[in-house]
Amino acid sequence: MCGVIGIYSQSDVSKKLFYGLNSLQHRGQEASGICVFDGKNMVLDKGMGLVYDNFDDESFIKLKGNIGIGHVRYATAGGSYEYNSQPLLAFSKNREFALAHNGNLVNHKSIRKELEDEGMLFQTAIDTEVILSLVAKYYTGDIIEAVKKTMSRIKGAYSVVMLFEDKLVAFRDPYGYRPLLIGRAKNGEVIIASENAPLEIIGTDAIRDVEPSEIIVVDKKGIHSEFFEKEKRQHCIFEYVYFARTDATLDGVNSYNFRRRCGEILSKEAPVDADLVIAVPDSGTPGAMGYAQESGIPFAEGLVKNRYMGRTFIKPTPEERELSVKLKLNPLETVLRDKRIILVDDSIVRGTTSKNLIMRMKKAGAKEVHMRIVSPPVKYPCFYGIDTPSRKKLIAANYSVEEMRRRIGADSLAFISMKGMLDATLMKEDVFCKACFNGDYAVEPKELVEYEK
Amino acid sequence: MCGVIGIYSQSDVSKKLFYGLNSLQHRGQEASGICVFDGKNMVLDKGMGLVYDNFDDESFIKLKGNIGIGHVRYATAGGSYEYNSQPLLAFSKNREFALAHNGNLVNHKSIRKELEDEGMLFQTAIDTEVILSLVAKYYTGDIIEAVKKTMSRIKGAYSVVMLFEDKLVAFRDPYGYRPLLIGRAKNGEVIIASENAPLEIIGTDAIRDVEPSEIIVVDKKGIHSEFFEKEKRQHCIFEYVYFARTDATLDGVNSYNFRRRCGEILSKEAPVDADLVIAVPDSGTPGAMGYAQESGIPFAEGLVKNRYMGRTFIKPTPEERELSVKLKLNPLETVLRDKRIILVDDSIVRGTTSKNLIMRMKKAGAKEVHMRIVSPPVKYPCFYGIDTPSRKKLIAANYSVEEMRRRIGADSLAFISMKGMLDATLMKEDVFCKACFNGDYAVEPKELVEYEK
Amino acid sequence: MCGVIGIYSQSDVSKKLFYGLNSLQHRGQEASGICVFDGKNMVLDKGMGLVYDNFDDESFIKLKGNIGIGHVRYATAGGSYEYNSQPLLAFSKNREFALAHNGNLVNHKSIRKELEDEGMLFQTAIDTEVILSLVAKYYTGDIIEAVKKTMSRIKGAYSVVMLFEDKLVAFRDPYGYRPLLIGRAKNGEVIIASENAPLEIIGTDAIRDVEPSEIIVVDKKGIHSEFFEKEKRQHCIFEYVYFARTDATLDGVNSYNFRRRCGEILSKEAPVDADLVIAVPDSGTPGAMGYAQESGIPFAEGLVKNRYMGRTFIKPTPEERELSVKLKLNPLETVLRDKRIILVDDSIVRGTTSKNLIMRMKKAGAKEVHMRIVSPPVKYPCFYGIDTPSRKKLIAANYSVEEMRRRIGADSLAFISMKGMLDATLMKEDVFCKACFNGDYAVEPKELVEYEK
Amino acid sequence: MCGVIGIYSQSDVSKKLFYGLNSLQHRGQEASGICVFDGKNMVLDKGMGLVYDNFDDESFIKLKGNIGIGHVRYATAGGSYEYNSQPLLAFSKNREFALAHNGNLVNHKSIRKELEDEGMLFQTAIDTEVILSLVAKYYTGDIIEAVKKTMSRIKGAYSVVMLFEDKLVAFRDPYGYRPLLIGRAKNGEVIIASENAPLEIIGTDAIRDVEPSEIIVVDKKGIHSEFFEKEKRQHCIFEYVYFARTDATLDGVNSYNFRRRCGEILSKEAPVDADLVIAVPDSGTPGAMGYAQESGIPFAEGLVKNRYMGRTFIKPTPEERELSVKLKLNPLETVLRDKRIILVDDSIVRGTTSKNLIMRMKKAGAKEVHMRIVSPPVKYPCFYGIDTPSRKKLIAANYSVEEMRRRIGADSLAFISMKGMLDATLMKEDVFCKACFNGDYAVEPKELVEYEK
Repeated sequence: MCGVIGIYSQSDVSKKLFYGLNSLQHRGQEASGICVFDGKNMVLDKGMGLVYDNFDDESFIKLKGNIGIGHVRYATAGGSYEYNSQPLLAFSKNREFALAHNGNLVNHKSIRKELEDEGMLFQTAIDTEVILSLVAKYYTGDIIEAVKKTMSRIKGAYSVVMLFEDKLVAFRDPYGYRPLLIGRAKNGEVIIASENAPLEIIGTDAIRDVEPSEIIVVDKKGIHSEFFEKEKRQHCIFEYVYFARTDATLDGVNSYNFRRRCGEILSKEAPVDADLVIAVPDSGTPGAMGYAQESGIPFAEGLVKNRYMGRTFIKPTPEERELSVKLKLNPLETVLRDKRIILVDDSIVRGTTSKNLIMRMKKAGAKEVHMRIVSPPVKYPCFYGIDTPSRKKLIAANYSVEEMRRRIGADSLAFISMKGMLDATLMKEDVFCKACFNGDYAVEPKELVEYEK
Repeated sequence: MCGVIGIYSQSDVSKKLFYGLNSLQHRGQEASGICVFDGKNMVLDKGMGLVYDNFDDESFIKLKGNIGIGHVRYATAGGSYEYNSQPLLAFSKNREFALAHNGNLVNHKSIRKELEDEGMLFQTAIDTEVILSLVAKYYTGDIIEAVKKTMSRIKGAYSVVMLFEDKLVAFRDPYGYRPLLIGRAKNGEVIIASENAPLEIIGTDAIRDVEPSEIIVVDKKGIHSEFFEKEKRQHCIFEYVYFARTDATLDGVNSYNFRRRCGEILSKEAPVDADLVIAVPDSGTPGAMGYAQESGIPFAEGLVKNRYMGRTFIKPTPEERELSVKLKLNPLETVLRDKRIILVDDSIVRGTTSKNLIMRMKKAGAKEVHMRIVSPPVKYPCFYGIDTPSRKKLIAANYSVEEMRRRIGADSLAFISMKGMLDATLMKEDVFCKACFNGDYAVEPKELVEYEK
Repeated sequence: MCGVIGIYSQSDVSKKLFYGLNSLQHRGQEASGICVFDGKNMVLDKGMGLVYDNFDDESFIKLKGNIGIGHVRYATAGGSYEYNSQPLLAFSKNREFALAHNGNLVNHKSIRKELEDEGMLFQTAIDTEVILSLVAKYYTGDIIEAVKKTMSRIKGAYSVVMLFEDKLVAFRDPYGYRPLLIGRAKNGEVIIASENAPLEIIGTDAIRDVEPSEIIVVDKKGIHSEFFEKEKRQHCIFEYVYFARTDATLDGVNSYNFRRRCGEILSKEAPVDADLVIAVPDSGTPGAMGYAQESGIPFAEGLVKNRYMGRTFIKPTPEERELSVKLKLNPLETVLRDKRIILVDDSIVRGTTSKNLIMRMKKAGAKEVHMRIVSPPVKYPCFYGIDTPSRKKLIAANYSVEEMRRRIGADSLAFISMKGMLDATLMKEDVFCKACFNGDYAVEPKELVEYEK
Repeated sequence: MCGVIGIYSQSDVSKKLFYGLNSLQHRGQEASGICVFDGKNMVLDKGMGLVYDNFDDESFIKLKGNIGIGHVRYATAGGSYEYNSQPLLAFSKNREFALAHNGNLVNHKSIRKELEDEGMLFQTAIDTEVILSLVAKYYTGDIIEAVKKTMSRIKGAYSVVMLFEDKLVAFRDPYGYRPLLIGRAKNGEVIIASENAPLEIIGTDAIRDVEPSEIIVVDKKGIHSEFFEKEKRQHCIFEYVYFARTDATLDGVNSYNFRRRCGEILSKEAPVDADLVIAVPDSGTPGAMGYAQESGIPFAEGLVKNRYMGRTFIKPTPEERELSVKLKLNPLETVLRDKRIILVDDSIVRGTTSKNLIMRMKKAGAKEVHMRIVSPPVKYPCFYGIDTPSRKKLIAANYSVEEMRRRIGADSLAFISMKGMLDATLMKEDVFCKACFNGDYAVEPKELVEYEK
């Protein structure tokens, strides 16, 4: 996962990009970067680490420009190297192209191979460079044409922001896997970003989703929009389950309300007699509240999350790793002692965190721990940008619910049904990608599946 | 406010101090430091900034030692200079003294003047240096005697950890204003800290409060405890209201349960007809839940807190300041739209944040905002270590509740009663300092009050 | 200008690369980088700044590998951006290629255009990326073939070190413009570098020049050498005049002896009656000594060079720039006062430094300043890697010697003759590129000349 | 050894302090710091490392002030901790005192003990803090009185610059051990510094030495000068031998001319038949030139000094240490081969460097190496600020000249005579401290000598 932002303005945008990226920081903490166009050249500053560690007063002396893009990167497959950080900046045909991407292409390996066979080389391990290469390759004077040709080649999930000459360009894949929104402020400033938070914080009024397959060009002539071929929508439902901020409203679904309704529905589908509903903070909280509200069982905070994270050292000892885990969540003994607990979490992936948590809650005095998950079992890997592990490591792909219950040490375990989850979206149509739950991959991830074997 | 930690072990303590300080980071984000005794000398590493920004792999190559102390500093009066960071390390009488302090002395100015008149000089602007100076001055071979003589001179709030030779020393003022706990692990390791979180995370079993006026020396002979003269307990009630972690149990009161009960009691004292109970996260959340639970009005999350904070630049523009404020809390329009809201916060100090928040909630569609505060009005400055502003800036010191309501733009405003708050502690006796609410200063802050004029 | 190094060993090479790069630091201070092969992957660490600022203990925790290359970069045309620092690392055909380069291609613009027209994109502004792109493009299983095909395309000056799989590869252009040496230590370790200093410091016995057009592959089978087509040698004579270290012996010419002999010859060609011979340190010193020795006029140190350089600030004021210039060289009044001075420098490029210096020497009391230059007038730009300015800015390209004398404020001015300089090499044949003096470009720099217009 | 600077101006001084400190960097590379008075408060920025590593654009946003002092620190006895860096800043009697010091007190231990017995504590391990403590202790409203009382207590070498309120204060010990100069620019700016280089670079006209025992106060009323009791002058002759810059003129002696004359005199005192005179750069160079000039034996550069130093790693291996030594000086084989060499150095302290150097020169082909030292044998430790080792480690304190010759592997070894060195100063009177050569300590270093035993 990643987060992107782009701003087109009449005044300096670098600090706005900075604050906007801060509000997208939950989408990626590994690396961050900003690229602005100073009227003549692109200025790029990026590196490993959090947004507010990477930029200081000195950065902004250099990052002067009225158009810019930014990116936060989640540690994924490409590997944790600085050269995998974005935005990418490239020179081709006497021009500069800067680009940042959220999503994942299912056919980037074959395109890459094809391009490499043509002699092209790559300086990163990320699929973003494939998009950049294609745009540059296909560019012959019309940037929209180059983007269209690129879109005809790449398959999968992509929400892209791009700087090209004095233009801010954005485009989204035909299925709309990853979110992308656009807003305009009263002073004419245009902001495009992965979620609505940066738009609201920086201040825009007219916020709308960039449509699947839409191509947007913002320049001095205004906002221009075109479409590539549309497909049946496949908005990633896991964005609402876990990834997006609570205040996100993406493609018509509000994340907070969705999570809360999932909790309400699950309390009907899988009731249990208990004393308290406890959430795994922060993403489990709305679901837990919905569950509590609907069931009438009181909600309480029984796990304290540390607001500040510990740094990762180069070679941590196992003891240090353990300390780091305990630092993250601390069970509240005074709340848990002798209580029957319903523990609500957004999802179970590997199961190791749940197991560790339940063990520590029981050590802190919890009499029973009934686990309730406000999404169905994750049985399939995501090939569209969520960093799920391979099937071998997905606990739900390998065990029955009862076996899972035993492994994590819960007294009972239940997941919301697929229908329940879809109902919680309040959408009339099913416009969602649920591949991680049911294995229905609208865009065939053939080469990636093979790679996994 | 600040946080302190000390560890006595048979193995290297620096990483444990690091993780422990991380869990105390909420008590101070301005500066942080660690000092260890390597068997021969003290090794000190400190600086401005968060714990995890200040220390890296290279730090821990140098910070080798089996005894150590650490400190996190909150930006207070002394000014935001590196020389005000702690622990302080001093040389005297052919010995090294290292010390870290949480609290505030009410007579440090006069002692400082007296010492300066004797020709002593100070290299920081903080009262901690007065404690260190006195301990060194009074040391003639017996560290406990030196501490006792020091305690006979200093007045106010102090929870101190100290490294001296191969000893870890700790002492707490006779009133017990600021918290301090001690725990022992199975392997004999002893940890002393401002809250129980670091003790639980690093792992100790027998956790107890360091008693008011207690002096503790940990060395190879074990844990030695003595007492200076006791006074009537004056535990700072504001620790439970706001400052301490939710999982803190300090001097017999659990912070989470206290906050929740305050909300329950307030819902009886100041009911209002509304649609939703909303908390100002994170410290208002338990109170809001208590209010909701008891009133039957549903709790919802209507304000999204940004998990990552923006960096402060050297000379922010007003626009950047505004961005930074908005980044912190974002009103959730889908929750607030057309609703009558009960907004629960832990306290009101200046009133500016509340005003800004209510304005933005109404802009996001809230029909009514009824503010409920789970502590009484803060009318008096704290002289014991909480960084409250002068009376001129305390809104409750200058305006009636009705005037305050008007100024912050709320539809109604109510505070919990003093009796209600005390009841929420579940303590049979009133052992609390409530000076910020009622002006009863058990330790006369005469010279500080004059200073304020 | 730049400096390169490569090491093939049985043990970790990163610290050796570090010290080796330190000894090449005079060849480039703008950026520095190291890339090692850890047996599986390349690990790259590079950035703006001096070698010893860029690498610390933490760097070497990551940079583990028995084969590696390094680079120091001089600020040249490509612009002062981090993305222009080397080594470059690229992925192609399922392989990793890392490469560092000293020199300059005269046809990189046309190759780049050709590759861009094929759709290739570039992520730096440097010609090194063209070499890397071609090697990757032409690689089909045999790295030597790929290098040969690359050499058949690129024209100009290049001394290259490369990491490919478990091999250290090096190659030098057919004219041998830029130096490159190889040595082998007793333990079998092989070192390749731009000068002999790193080889001597790290410790090798059998040092020889890599021959023009030679391609070297070092791997577990040993050192393999092949040749591409040879051309008439064109060793850059300016390396001996100014660029190389005093202790460099490159392609049979020792830098120190050459400089000294030039001074001796110039004292015959252009004698003058004076009191003292003064050098512009450090590169003018051997020439001044030769001049003094042969003329019998005493040599003295009359200009003190600051051993530590001032940092460059982002936006220096003119006053700061002036301070920085004065900091570099300080005239020694007690030496210069009332003396007739022969000032010896290695070359005159723009003439501004000489002018400023003579002015300050006269202010410090020098009665006469006779400037003697131990190289002929620089009248033509270098297209092979020395960062000379365009003809418009070369003072000797625009003015007669007498006019130059007047402009710099010298009492007399003389340059060594071309024949004199060649004699100083002691070589039987003229195997040198003297294009900056006489405009004879053995490799036609057509496209670069056009670019300059 | 250390270097100090102070500037009093009508405009911002921080960048001037920065460039001035740069020109004093040879006097100390361990730590550096700047303190300015912003009209209300002192602003201090200091840390380990070179001047140009410690300060960047962000530093100068904070360091705003028209008066300021700076310091560079040489790694000496106190130990390599950040808390030993200067300037020191202290608070006393409601005032701020900032102070930086070059020199060494012989009675700081007893004063420190006395002050510690009074209860005073110290936060550094350096004698500078004793000076600061006394000034603060004795201050009762008149800073000059406080300085005089301080000077009546402290014994030894001190050249001090101080910031107090809106004043720049400087004072020098009655013997004038360490240099200190003052100059005034046309615009009224006053600069005080350890050497003349910063005064010349920043630009002052009337440069004079601060006299031994002189106390200077610069404020808006101008430059005020007073004297404490004078003593017989004892200017450290080792400043001219080694420590000061070549362009230094301190207390009437010019460093370059002195060094050169020492070489001339030594060539008469200890002639030898040889082919070349070689200097150990940089401090041996003028002496070698004088020797060559007078003897008629040609001077040549046979040792190449690396202009850039390698970083020190936390735990260097022996191999890395060796690399670092070789990096510093590289013998020039083409110069040395088959030659009989006269090697001139400024002094011999431990003898290890000379031994290593001669060994490597012989390995590079030198037939004979005759060592000539342009100062007498260093037989006694310095207690006035030069960091000489204890007698046990001083080779000349333990061995005869012939034994020394054998140990370092030279073919002959000779030192200049004491008379010769004194003649080289051209001073009519002997106003020099030569204690390191003859053990005549004008200020009795009793307590330090005892400490050494």
